[in-house]
Amino acid sequence: MTAAAGTVPLDVPSGRPAAVPTPEPGDPRLARLSLNQRTCAGWSLREAIDGCLAAGLPAIGVWREPVAEVGLETAVRWVREAGLRVSSVCRGGFFTGSDPGAVAAAHQANVEAVRETAALGAATLVLVPGGLPEGDTDLPGARARATEAIGALQPVAAEHGVRLGIEPMHPIFAADRGVVSTLGQALDIAEQLDPETVGVVVDTFHLWWEPGIEQQIARAGSRIVSYQVCDWITPFPADALLSRGMMGDGHIDFPAFTRQVAQAGYASDVEVEIFHADVWAAPGADVVATMARRYVELVQPHL
Amino acid sequence: MTAAAGTVPLDVPSGRPAAVPTPEPGDPRLARLSLNQRTCAGWSLREAIDGCLAAGLPAIGVWREPVAEVGLETAVRWVREAGLRVSSVCRGGFFTGSDPGAVAAAHQANVEAVRETAALGAATLVLVPGGLPEGDTDLPGARARATEAIGALQPVAAEHGVRLGIEPMHPIFAADRGVVSTLGQALDIAEQLDPETVGVVVDTFHLWWEPGIEQQIARAGSRIVSYQVCDWITPFPADALLSRGMMGDGHIDFPAFTRQVAQAGYASDVEVEIFHADVWAAPGADVVATMARRYVELVQPHL
Repeated sequence: MTAAAGTVPLDVPSGRPAAVPTPEPGDPRLARLSLNQRTCAGWSLREAIDGCLAAGLPAIGVWREPVAEVGLETAVRWVREAGLRVSSVCRGGFFTGSDPGAVAAAHQANVEAVRETAALGAATLVLVPGGLPEGDTDLPGARARATEAIGALQPVAAEHGVRLGIEPMHPIFAADRGVVSTLGQALDIAEQLDPETVGVVVDTFHLWWEPGIEQQIARAGSRIVSYQVCDWITPFPADALLSRGMMGDGHIDFPAFTRQVAQAGYASDVEVEIFHADVWAAPGADVVATMARRYVELVQPHL
Repeated sequence: MTAAAGTVPLDVPSGRPAAVPTPEPGDPRLARLSLNQRTCAGWSLREAIDGCLAAGLPAIGVWREPVAEVGLETAVRWVREAGLRVSSVCRGGFFTGSDPGAVAAAHQANVEAVRETAALGAATLVLVPGGLPEGDTDLPGARARATEAIGALQPVAAEHGVRLGIEPMHPIFAADRGVVSTLGQALDIAEQLDPETVGVVVDTFHLWWEPGIEQQIARAGSRIVSYQVCDWITPFPADALLSRGMMGDGHIDFPAFTRQVAQAGYASDVEVEIFHADVWAAPGADVVATMARRYVELVQPHL
């Protein structure tokens, strides 16, 4: 699908002709655009770094598994040599287990994630709270354990100079992935803790539907440690995890949402994080080109 | 799957042996149990009425399409002759269209639904607000139109002695079905209107995840015009509309939720509304027997 010179490139995955030209490397409009590497799931960390460089993106959001594949030291060296900012590390969390062994193991895994985040110099460690333990229907209990675990991680993060980002997740994931379901709820937790160390992740997919979201984004202010974008698409795909679509292909009002985030004072990178079977099947360079076009069309002018 | 005398019946759709005996007709624990007819989607209205009678259920929730199939007059006669209460009529609403023609058509359709609800003597007309119009990303605008349409329907409902039940829907449906996403938001709308005429539907599937739901249920109080139950199951089925499972097969804490609804003063029928491919494929009598068992096990003791 890569466009020959002079032809209009096709958007991924819609196949529609691009509405705007692809911004070239060096274009100042790209100054805050970050590729979350899961958007190009077929790429290794090395390929994702090279993909950012080729497209002129200044930042990348990394996942711990591909970092582990090459080793932390190598990953740190690669991103430094490439001159990329690491906008986030995905992900810590999953600390809703109820037995003491699970709680201790989750804490230890998160301590390790904090160390990796510090080594990578990343802006934040994204915390996905986790779901209900098997056979357990006590949602308030799981939420209380998540809150407690974040509190226990705070001094570790502070010691390493790492900011934790609590990620409220769409309620579709409340049972099996993330028991923190709204930005309001995430802020109720974060506000009990040091603002230098504990913030919130604002992700359009997870939060676009939240009644009063404008007030909650304003309330969040400097607690916003990451702004992640992708669209809510319908019909909903068979695998609910793969329903994060390309900006502009779904129902989210990116200009309005982005203006609210900007008005709250957020001035850091904007990460594109798409999980979508057809996006993953496309060549990474075409995905990055589409996301750059949609970003300069729908998001960047409103920052 | 119908059990022979003396053997333990199998639950639908899990196939597990029943944990408790099926309550017999006349059992006082069934005094508030209602079958929403979509739970047995293969049944006609006549079969659903007969199924309620055979199982000893005192109430039924009807859908407008199967009522229309036999004609309103016949439907009214059947439920009266059967001595069944009609716990709800599903459904009105779908009034988020943005052009004047769509708004007028939706109002007229809802006036008709109010008349049917009055004729059936039903406890409430369930209002499903509707989603975003095609190509429209203005969620606050759609929510404002829904609010306005409910206000416009209020005098019609009052004139017919019908209570409207605003149904907040799980955020998974915010784009394409229901822009009212939380009980808090539904109450913000309802509280602008006459409590005798406008209330809210509390459905476990749609609301179990809502942070602060206990406070919102208490706030709702006598505004609760319908309590509907089914479970949130994982893994999520390919068709998101068919994810309403049998109570006890998923992640919802029915005892806790039901106690909150009871403490809010709700004293009317409890409607079981399941949308699930395997439930729909099973013989209706087995579905009704399983739901009656699960109800007396998980819900009824907490009313």
